[in-house]
Amino acid sequence: MAPQSHLIPSRSAKRAQYDKETIYSILDEALFCTISYAAGNKPFSIPTAFVRYENKLYIHGSVGSHFIWELEKGVPVCISVTLIDALVVAKSAFSHSVNYRSVVLFSQGVKMEEDALKFSVLEWLTNKIVPNSWDYLRPMKENEVRKTTVLAFDIDEASAKTRTGMPNDEDEDKPLPIWSGIIPIETTRRDPVPDDLSRNLPLPVHLQPGKA
Amino acid sequence: MAPQSHLIPSRSAKRAQYDKETIYSILDEALFCTISYAAGNKPFSIPTAFVRYENKLYIHGSVGSHFIWELEKGVPVCISVTLIDALVVAKSAFSHSVNYRSVVLFSQGVKMEEDALKFSVLEWLTNKIVPNSWDYLRPMKENEVRKTTVLAFDIDEASAKTRTGMPNDEDEDKPLPIWSGIIPIETTRRDPVPDDLSRNLPLPVHLQPGKA
Repeated sequence: MAPQSHLIPSRSAKRAQYDKETIYSILDEALFCTISYAAGNKPFSIPTAFVRYENKLYIHGSVGSHFIWELEKGVPVCISVTLIDALVVAKSAFSHSVNYRSVVLFSQGVKMEEDALKFSVLEWLTNKIVPNSWDYLRPMKENEVRKTTVLAFDIDEASAKTRTGMPNDEDEDKPLPIWSGIIPIETTRRDPVPDDLSRNLPLPVHLQPGKA
Repeated sequence: MAPQSHLIPSRSAKRAQYDKETIYSILDEALFCTISYAAGNKPFSIPTAFVRYENKLYIHGSVGSHFIWELEKGVPVCISVTLIDALVVAKSAFSHSVNYRSVVLFSQGVKMEEDALKFSVLEWLTNKIVPNSWDYLRPMKENEVRKTTVLAFDIDEASAKTRTGMPNDEDEDKPLPIWSGIIPIETTRRDPVPDDLSRNLPLPVHLQPGKA
């Protein structure tokens, strides 16, 4: 793709997808999102972990966090999630592109008041980031839940954009003896490294390579 | 770290760094940023590739991109860059955290008018994403430069936040026989995959594994 649509979703309408299945699959693979809000027409954005459950996206933060205070007011937010799959190397710089899967979501936060629901969200979030870990950990305490704000965002106004495949070089460039193709980008979890407290503890099954 | 400061930089002032060296090193390692702006107090954000040169961050996009049109007006933007280094697995979910390096930058775009400077930015950007590739590619044409808008953002109001190291479990949790440590996250480039036009072309030196 040409630089004009280089990861600029608004440009390439043909790449927009609104089906929930695509949107959910991107949200479920990504661990982190960037949340933006505006104050006095000035934008603020911040990266944070999140989890999707049914048609909501959840984040958590400290009851003392300035950012969380702003979001719990229910101000409009834009949540952006991006997975980079490959660099697309064309014969011209102009036709270079990126294979990616992204979601942009407009919503507003609703503060969860019920401890039981907050508890569930923290369980989903923990198990998303480290699969099957929640039941192994020291159980969460009531006061920890109370020190944590959980915000829910409806996933109603969302779109996904994706690019896959090989470069789209200009016809006149195609005969050129210049290498073109893709460089896959892979994000992987390496083997866990214990801290000093855990050197003599067995690595639990859910953390063993290939399990997460 | 506790969920309260889980990638919520505003919370953990002790993690804020303002030295240019740290900020530049994060910007130079990351290929993509999320740019946010506000219109009518509603935030909009989008991922895009970028390159830093001296004290400016540059992006490019189509002269026909709605997003670029907004940004070239010089509206305030928030640019967010995040590198994830490790998942920090504590003995309690509450003490889980993430090792990360992030930059948040407030600025506004200035449209580059000179073709020569735009040309240089596109060269820097291309060589950042695929090192040493610019001179190998079909040279950029004047009309391609004219179809591309390049925006420059001063890096004056920027801060970096980083977390490194092992979990900080509560003292009372430390004796628990629960594994704690980190799971390093690595983003790597896999071997290049040629398209149909390039199956019989040699892989140029700059694309050979270990070079990029």
